[in-house]
Amino acid sequence: MELPKPGILDSQPTAHRRVWRISDGESLDQEIEVVLEEPLALYLNGKQVAVLMRLPGMEKELAAGFCLSEGLVNRFTDVLTIHHCGQGLPGPLEDPSTSAPESRNRVELRVRPEALREDARLEVVRLIRAGCGAVDVQEAALSLPTVQGGQPVELQVILGLEKTMRAQQRLHQQVGGVHAAALFEAGGKLVVLAEDIGRHNAVDKAVGYCLLRDIPLADKLLLSSGRLSYEMVTKTIRLGIPILVSVSAPTALAVQLAERFGVTLIGYLRGHKMTVYTHPERILPA
Amino acid sequence: MELPKPGILDSQPTAHRRVWRISDGESLDQEIEVVLEEPLALYLNGKQVAVLMRLPGMEKELAAGFCLSEGLVNRFTDVLTIHHCGQGLPGPLEDPSTSAPESRNRVELRVRPEALREDARLEVVRLIRAGCGAVDVQEAALSLPTVQGGQPVELQVILGLEKTMRAQQRLHQQVGGVHAAALFEAGGKLVVLAEDIGRHNAVDKAVGYCLLRDIPLADKLLLSSGRLSYEMVTKTIRLGIPILVSVSAPTALAVQLAERFGVTLIGYLRGHKMTVYTHPERILPA
Repeated sequence: MELPKPGILDSQPTAHRRVWRISDGESLDQEIEVVLEEPLALYLNGKQVAVLMRLPGMEKELAAGFCLSEGLVNRFTDVLTIHHCGQGLPGPLEDPSTSAPESRNRVELRVRPEALREDARLEVVRLIRAGCGAVDVQEAALSLPTVQGGQPVELQVILGLEKTMRAQQRLHQQVGGVHAAALFEAGGKLVVLAEDIGRHNAVDKAVGYCLLRDIPLADKLLLSSGRLSYEMVTKTIRLGIPILVSVSAPTALAVQLAERFGVTLIGYLRGHKMTVYTHPERILPA
Repeated sequence: MELPKPGILDSQPTAHRRVWRISDGESLDQEIEVVLEEPLALYLNGKQVAVLMRLPGMEKELAAGFCLSEGLVNRFTDVLTIHHCGQGLPGPLEDPSTSAPESRNRVELRVRPEALREDARLEVVRLIRAGCGAVDVQEAALSLPTVQGGQPVELQVILGLEKTMRAQQRLHQQVGGVHAAALFEAGGKLVVLAEDIGRHNAVDKAVGYCLLRDIPLADKLLLSSGRLSYEMVTKTIRLGIPILVSVSAPTALAVQLAERFGVTLIGYLRGHKMTVYTHPERILPA
């Protein structure tokens, strides 16, 4: 087996992207790098057992580590082969979803049949953490609606959201270790804030709060304390929320999906700075 | 339906825990709060569709938000009832796994049968993000091994791990938006560092690196840039890694599992400070 050096990939697993950086009232159009996010399909003795949304690189390591750490295989000595169909990583891509080789996104493990846990099939299905088959934009387009409308929002309103959220993250301030998600009106008024150990749960709680009270989502802004990955953006699209903001970074796949399905995606909202990745037409300049 | 106010729970969803706080060479034995982590089982028209590891509170909101944002139900108007078996949150608990009411950990949704997506059953199974049935300590004990041994490690070595990891987080420094996991020898030497968009993937990659090269795990320290939840600790236990360290916080369930299964759990490793939650006997004072 060909083994990569620790933490070193054949090339940078990133894509280039033109963004608008807002800083101290100035808007700068520039090219930056965003990290790739791709699905890795894991097969155990011929059966698909998981699809992991991950950063490309170290696929065989990820497959071996996952199967052992999740208890699908009890001892590594029972693993006969790990077959990686990958061809190595290509250079940085402008559009990773269409040009990335499918081959690197599939790893097969052969294991002594007696070493598989009796309930492995069941367990395995449970362990799929994110994503599904529909991770390329074309396939996703079959099931996702395009987000339309959404009131234009003043730049100054968006720049003020982080401060409002931080002031309300009660558990985060007192105990730590929790994410937050908040929904705001277009004028900047806080509708609901939810805290949870998981960033997806926090979003689902905040959104569920509105659903249970017949509060519309189509004119709101969603702010998350966590990274913006495939799953976070597909949630936003399905819910019809036009503007998704984070204090952290998006993945390349998140940016692609937001672009394609009409979501205004904003990252790195910190102090008086932010980075606009897609659909800036909903933002009114100061 | 009884509806909670935004972000406000009936009581603090935390547990109290005695820890050892190390700061500037001093060790202080004190009681702190850690956030609860419990499984929420979601049922859709009588079938279990997901188990979410989450912070207690806003369960009906979480259930509604999850089903809509993940596309299990297309329109909220198709939801007939959301039945929460919960009794409200109890006060802070010393041992949440044994005294938390099971009832709050189960929510049932009734949906117009025609509103369920045809492939919902399949999709649903895929969407289970973490955990499984075995989330109480007694049940987990049936399948998890106790971690024994592990070389004692000098306090100064542990306090130096964060700096070593940060220096090697190449992608994090250049692009941002990625987690890291690193394995160290007991003397503090870095064995491998892996970066990924997911903290679990980063751990699996680092661990897989060792598995593929016959590098033993039973004498290593694992350092993660992410929070320490149920899943992170069960991985560590299954792999037989004696010391798990994070720059962030653990949940109450993570602390309980580490205590029961012999893992030394350390959180908030920052600068020359850290918090030791369990099994300090592996740490040699300065």
